[in-house]
Amino acid sequence: MRQSRRGQVDPFIVMDVMEAAMRAEAAGRSIIHLEIGQPSTPAPAAARAALQARLDEPLGYTGALGLPALRQGIADLYRDWYGLDLDPERVIVTPGSSGAFLLAFSALFDAGERVALGEPGYPSYRQILRAMSLEPVGLPTAPEHRYQPRPEDLPDDVAGLMLASPGNPSGTMLGLEDYRGLLNRAAELGISVISDEIYHGLSYGERCHTALEVSDDVYVINSFSKYFAMTGWRVGWMIVPPDHVRTIERITQSMFICPPHASQVAALAALSAREECQANLAVYAENRALLLEALPQIGFDRIAPPDGAFYIYADVAHLTDDSVGFAAEILDKAGVAVTPGLDFDPRRGRQTIRFSYAGSTADMHEAMDRLRRFMADR
Amino acid sequence: MRQSRRGQVDPFIVMDVMEAAMRAEAAGRSIIHLEIGQPSTPAPAAARAALQARLDEPLGYTGALGLPALRQGIADLYRDWYGLDLDPERVIVTPGSSGAFLLAFSALFDAGERVALGEPGYPSYRQILRAMSLEPVGLPTAPEHRYQPRPEDLPDDVAGLMLASPGNPSGTMLGLEDYRGLLNRAAELGISVISDEIYHGLSYGERCHTALEVSDDVYVINSFSKYFAMTGWRVGWMIVPPDHVRTIERITQSMFICPPHASQVAALAALSAREECQANLAVYAENRALLLEALPQIGFDRIAPPDGAFYIYADVAHLTDDSVGFAAEILDKAGVAVTPGLDFDPRRGRQTIRFSYAGSTADMHEAMDRLRRFMADR
Repeated sequence: MRQSRRGQVDPFIVMDVMEAAMRAEAAGRSIIHLEIGQPSTPAPAAARAALQARLDEPLGYTGALGLPALRQGIADLYRDWYGLDLDPERVIVTPGSSGAFLLAFSALFDAGERVALGEPGYPSYRQILRAMSLEPVGLPTAPEHRYQPRPEDLPDDVAGLMLASPGNPSGTMLGLEDYRGLLNRAAELGISVISDEIYHGLSYGERCHTALEVSDDVYVINSFSKYFAMTGWRVGWMIVPPDHVRTIERITQSMFICPPHASQVAALAALSAREECQANLAVYAENRALLLEALPQIGFDRIAPPDGAFYIYADVAHLTDDSVGFAAEILDKAGVAVTPGLDFDPRRGRQTIRFSYAGSTADMHEAMDRLRRFMADR
Repeated sequence: MRQSRRGQVDPFIVMDVMEAAMRAEAAGRSIIHLEIGQPSTPAPAAARAALQARLDEPLGYTGALGLPALRQGIADLYRDWYGLDLDPERVIVTPGSSGAFLLAFSALFDAGERVALGEPGYPSYRQILRAMSLEPVGLPTAPEHRYQPRPEDLPDDVAGLMLASPGNPSGTMLGLEDYRGLLNRAAELGISVISDEIYHGLSYGERCHTALEVSDDVYVINSFSKYFAMTGWRVGWMIVPPDHVRTIERITQSMFICPPHASQVAALAALSAREECQANLAVYAENRALLLEALPQIGFDRIAPPDGAFYIYADVAHLTDDSVGFAAEILDKAGVAVTPGLDFDPRRGRQTIRFSYAGSTADMHEAMDRLRRFMADR
């Protein structure tokens, strides 16, 4: 059977690395996972208890936009985190941030349009855009600009711009002035802006800022995956301008019917589990400090201290120009899974790798020991 | 902010009817739900117990194609149900059948291509196609052909054909000869065929046949929503030709990362809960018999006895030419939610409505009493 052109997207390399790591583990090897961006902790205890209490009910379809109490709870979070008064009617609960991208790209862009995104960046933006017949336009970003795009980088022939703060893989954040400059320039050019804020809650100095503090004329995407430690539950959300809600509702009714009901029940309770989430954050902070000290000693010394998320992005140009092969070698010889930068930057990613420090501190110690031996033997 | 053209899809009317019914209930009214295609029973007990036993583990990302044990379990189901020997590598676990449609349409069709589908049919095919810049081409079907398309109906300028057996809203099924005729004609024309088999397991005479009994050159989509009573869990599956698996894996890695992990755990156990699923089927069979006797007496006498699923599609041309208004009137005056046919057939659906008999038998009795009074007073 004939395949489409748009379906021929690139693999999400980290998922392939994870598969390779899991095969090695199935074969009896010990692997430390620094490849995948997910907490090693379960969903918050309150979330699991809330679901357990409801397991005997029929968890049928919810409304397409999500459970009303969850939409209200997410709106309340914007007051807590940013001091914003957000109408819960603007909150769309989605099947992960992944589902939110599909909805946003459908609602905003027509086939053939071009959408700008910073490089390095989350690889799935690019692949989802392609699968939806949109053209990703990479904007190379510079270490001296903290790997974030600048207003003057914006081409005038794009229909959209993806922002991400904290960025993945860089962990760098946009401040209010950064958002203002980018959103103003986008408005001048008539460009729709989507702000990916999936790592909010995970910062180690300044608090994270949302694009909504600067403008309501933006799509903001977030998720329960990271701060709330619920990756596999596939529940996220999107805030859209009031006059876009009904458009999104009609699309999501058909595309998804609704987000997973059980996950929504758990997510609602997770919103109240702030103590447990903050305890997870304290672990990431400890891991981050550990890696920022150990990695340069081991030979990974070209890194920018990341403001947020749980990643460190390292320039390894002095070690390799084949990050995919280098990551495979590290997995094979050191038993440590890391992500080749090619996933995030098709131009310069052959000379970068990403370390995730979302695991346990004990795993971070072990990983640093293994990497130290690997680099010493190399 | 500018909205796209392709994002302006039609609402999924049944979801709006459900919202209206839920608002009426919130205002204190008693509503019987014959509108929505979902069981009123919870997920099978074994499914809920399996999840409960795993709730304290981190249910993180699974592989993009789903848990290996679940893929194997689904392959085994094809032996049980159809006597087929299916390679589990061809089984893609998806976020509901909805997610499977997104994957199939991306992998098979490029923007601007035309995809044929029978009318009446599941409305979301049409809306998802539009949101992905594809053009749905309705093939009007006839009651004398059991509301299914015929090989001679296939235009030669389409890239794809959606089949559905048992059909929604009609409940009518395709036999092996029907599949063979349609698949042969599609092959002659170079058309990719997607067979929606979400209601398999729910039939009341002949067993359901899968398109895979006739050819491997077809995409087959199914779900745990209906026979396994797990609508809100959002877990389904798709079988694709062997040389399409890696394409789908790359797309789903980015589009969905993975199906909900908790739902996959529950679904795996549901595969063994055949006794409970068959007990549900016995209830639907009783409901079906009840409605097939009561509806004609009440005045809904233009119906074709459905082979499968849990729907009855009635021609109400003698009662109205505004099915949306008629359904609103029934909801308002009788306290019974039904779905206007316009959801399924943009041409002829102003004169049809769909009754779902997936609820309890007590609800069916009450609904028939209410409809009897409503029609007598009208």
